[in-house]
Amino acid sequence: MPENLDLLLHARWVLPIDEKESVLEHHAVAIHGGRIVAVLPQDQARHRYHPARVVELPDHVLMPGLINTHAHAAMTLLKGIGDDLPLMRWLEEAIWPVEQRHVSESFVRDGTLLAAAEMLRGGITTCNDMYFFPGAAAEAFDRCGMRAVIGIVVVEAPTPWATDADEYFRKGLAERAQWRHAPLLGFSIAPHAPYSVSNASLERAASLAAELDCSLHVHIHETKHEIEQSLKQYGLRPLERFARLGLLGPNFLGVHCVHLEPHEIELLARHNCSVAHCPTSNMKLASGIAPVRAMQAAGVRVSLGTDGSASNNRLDLFGEMRQAALLAKVSTGDATVLPAYSVLRMATQEAADSIGLGNEVGSIEPGKAADLCAVDLSTLDMQPCYDPVSHLVYVADRQQVSHVWVGGESRLERGVLKLQIDNTELLAANRVWQTRIQ
Amino acid sequence: MPENLDLLLHARWVLPIDEKESVLEHHAVAIHGGRIVAVLPQDQARHRYHPARVVELPDHVLMPGLINTHAHAAMTLLKGIGDDLPLMRWLEEAIWPVEQRHVSESFVRDGTLLAAAEMLRGGITTCNDMYFFPGAAAEAFDRCGMRAVIGIVVVEAPTPWATDADEYFRKGLAERAQWRHAPLLGFSIAPHAPYSVSNASLERAASLAAELDCSLHVHIHETKHEIEQSLKQYGLRPLERFARLGLLGPNFLGVHCVHLEPHEIELLARHNCSVAHCPTSNMKLASGIAPVRAMQAAGVRVSLGTDGSASNNRLDLFGEMRQAALLAKVSTGDATVLPAYSVLRMATQEAADSIGLGNEVGSIEPGKAADLCAVDLSTLDMQPCYDPVSHLVYVADRQQVSHVWVGGESRLERGVLKLQIDNTELLAANRVWQTRIQ
Repeated sequence: MPENLDLLLHARWVLPIDEKESVLEHHAVAIHGGRIVAVLPQDQARHRYHPARVVELPDHVLMPGLINTHAHAAMTLLKGIGDDLPLMRWLEEAIWPVEQRHVSESFVRDGTLLAAAEMLRGGITTCNDMYFFPGAAAEAFDRCGMRAVIGIVVVEAPTPWATDADEYFRKGLAERAQWRHAPLLGFSIAPHAPYSVSNASLERAASLAAELDCSLHVHIHETKHEIEQSLKQYGLRPLERFARLGLLGPNFLGVHCVHLEPHEIELLARHNCSVAHCPTSNMKLASGIAPVRAMQAAGVRVSLGTDGSASNNRLDLFGEMRQAALLAKVSTGDATVLPAYSVLRMATQEAADSIGLGNEVGSIEPGKAADLCAVDLSTLDMQPCYDPVSHLVYVADRQQVSHVWVGGESRLERGVLKLQIDNTELLAANRVWQTRIQ
Repeated sequence: MPENLDLLLHARWVLPIDEKESVLEHHAVAIHGGRIVAVLPQDQARHRYHPARVVELPDHVLMPGLINTHAHAAMTLLKGIGDDLPLMRWLEEAIWPVEQRHVSESFVRDGTLLAAAEMLRGGITTCNDMYFFPGAAAEAFDRCGMRAVIGIVVVEAPTPWATDADEYFRKGLAERAQWRHAPLLGFSIAPHAPYSVSNASLERAASLAAELDCSLHVHIHETKHEIEQSLKQYGLRPLERFARLGLLGPNFLGVHCVHLEPHEIELLARHNCSVAHCPTSNMKLASGIAPVRAMQAAGVRVSLGTDGSASNNRLDLFGEMRQAALLAKVSTGDATVLPAYSVLRMATQEAADSIGLGNEVGSIEPGKAADLCAVDLSTLDMQPCYDPVSHLVYVADRQQVSHVWVGGESRLERGVLKLQIDNTELLAANRVWQTRIQ
C-alpha cells in the first residue's frame, strides 16, 4: 500500500548538501507535515507514495533554501541612498539622519515585507535579521511565511525605537515573548557593534544569550577605523575586548570580520565562533576583503550575508555566492580557492549552523524542515550545462529560482510569489515610503 | 504637418550618456531609417511626429545598447569547463585540448549564435569578438542582427582553423573581404597574446591594421607569469616589446592590463591606447586586479569585457558594470572611486571609442545608429528607486532588460527575443554540442 504524502518533488538533480558532495540525478524529495521524510530515486518514490501533490522539476536543481546570515531587511526602503560613500560618511551623512527622521513601526513592517518578498523570490528561505522595532519585523516575516531569526538590537544611542540600552533590552525581550509561539521565528541578541555598545551592555548581552540559549549577532572588525577607535578607547582591538568580556563562543556570529590578524582567526576558531561574510557590502563601502580562506582553514565557520539594501543594494545570495568565490580567488591569487561546492555549503548548512538552526534546516535530509528552492537550468543563458554545481555559483541568477518552499508550504511557483500579501499591496506601500523619503 | 517617422520611443527616463551626465525624464527618442533623429520631451514628440510605431516605456530607462569589448563568443559552448583552475592550467589542461578536438566552422557558428542570443537578451548590442573561424562568427552575428567587430585572430600554433601565422592572416583577410558589405559587421586584427605571437607577426599585424584602418585587439599583461616569460624570452615586459614593435596607438585595444607599472600606464596614455577591463574573468582565474582608477586618471580609455563564457561564465555586462565598480572601490580602499555613472560610460561611449565605433554608437544622439536598450525598473526587487543611474549599476540584473534595438530593428520585446533564429533551434544545436563535448 502506498503511503499518504503531502508533497512529492521530482527533480532532474537533487543537491542534498552532504559530506560526499552528492549530486543525485532523477531523484525525488518526499515531504509530509512540513518535513522532509525521504530522498530517493524517482522510480521508487512513485511506487512508495500516494502524494496529495506532485511537482515535476525536469530541468531543475532542487536544493536547500538559502540562508542569509546578515541583513537589515527594513533598510530596503533606503536602497541606493548614499551610494559611492565610505562607511562612516555613509552612516553619518546619509543613513543615520534619514533613519532618525523616518524609522517607525510601520517603516520596519513595510520595509521588511518588501525585503522578505525579494528574498523569497530569490530562493532565500531564512533571514538572520538585525534592525529596530523587532516586533514589526517579526510581523512582516510571519505574514510572508519566511523563517527568520530576529535580532534584539542594542545600541547606546537613542533612536525612534528606544532611548538607552536598558530600554533596547527590555522592549526587545517583550517582543520576543509576544512572538514565542510563531513556528518560523526565533530571536537573537544583537549588540550593534564595538563602537556603539558599552562593556556593560555587551556583558549583559552575553549572559542573556546564554540564559535564553540564543545566538549573539554583532558587527565586528568591519573597518580599520573601527579597530583604531577601539585601540584608542579601550586599549584593545574589538575582538580581544569581546573575548575578555566573555562574548566569544559557539553562539557568537561576528559579521564582516574583514580585518583579522592571524591570532584573531585562531581566537575565533578556538571559541568555535561563526562569521557572516558580506562580500558585496565590504566591496561597496571599500571596507576590505575578509580572509575567508584563512578562516576556513583554521576551522572558523563562514556563511554569507547580504547586509542591508542600503549598502549592497540587493538581497541576493546567488550574487553573494558568486562574489565570495571570485573575491577569495583574486585576493589569494589562487584560482582553486573556494570552489563552487564549498560556496553552496556556506549559503546553506554552514549558515544554518551559524545561527543555531543546523538541525532544523540547511540540508535536504529526513527529519529536517522542508525549506527548499528549485533552480531552473533550462533557459537559453544557462546553456550548455556540464555541471549543475558550477552553474549554481558561476552562471545562475536569482531569477532562475522557480519554486520555493518554507516548512513544506509553497512560497514561489514558476517564478510567481504565493504570499498572503500580494504584489499590488507591497508596491503601494513602497510608493508611499518612496515619496515620503525622497 | 507632423513628420513621418519609423519609430518613437517614450521612456520614463532617457540616459543619453553625455558630458553633463543628463538623466532626461519623460523624454522620447525618435528613430528613422535605423538612426536616431531626435531626443525631445514627450509632449513635443507627440506633436512633431507621425510615427509608424510607438513603444511606451513608462517605468523604464532607455539607454544606449551595451558594448562588450572583449569576448570569445563561440566559447559559450565550453561554459563551466575547468572551473576553479588558474589561467595556464585552465588553458593547457582544460580549454586547449577540448578546442583541438571540437573547434570547427559549425562549432563557431553554433556557439556564436548562442552567445549572441545571450548578449542581446541582456542588452548588449555590440560585441568585439576574437576566436577561430571568423567567417563562421560573422555568419552568426549577421543572422542574429547583432553589431560585431570580429577579430582576425593570429597565433603561431596550429589549430583546426589554420596552421601558421601566414595562414591565419590570409584566411582571416579572405573572410573579411567576403563580409565587407554586411552593415553591422567590422573586423579587427587580433594577434592573440604576447606569448603566442612572434615579433614578425606582431609587426605585420600593426601595419595591416594601419593599412586597413581597423583596431588591434590583443590580450596583454593578464598574468605575472606572462610578464616573467616575456622577460626571459625577450628581455622586455610585453608592453615595452609591443611599443618597440610599433603596435601602440589610438587603435590599440589591450585586453586585461592587470599588471602594470606606473610608467606602463603612462605609455598607454601617451599613445592614446584603450584597455578592455574584464573584472570577473580576472577574479575567477585569480589573475589579479587591474588598476582602473590609475589608468583612468592617466587618461587611458577603459571599457568592459566579459571575456569568454569558459572563464566568466556569463556574457553579462550588467554583472561586469557592478563588478568593476565594486572591485575598484575595494582594491583602492576608496568607496568614491568609479561611481555609477562613470561605469555606465565605460560600457557605452568609452567602449564604442575603444573599437573605432565612437561616431556610430555608444550614446543616444541624433545621427547615431539606433542601438538601444530599455531596462524595466518596475518589478518588486527594483523598489524603491531614488536614482535610476544607481539602480542600473547596483541593483538591476540583465533580466530587467525588456527591449533591445540594433540599428532601429527590434531584437527583444518585453523580454522575448525577436531573432531570425528561434530558441528551439538554438537549444537543439546546443544539445548536440553538449552531448558531443561531454
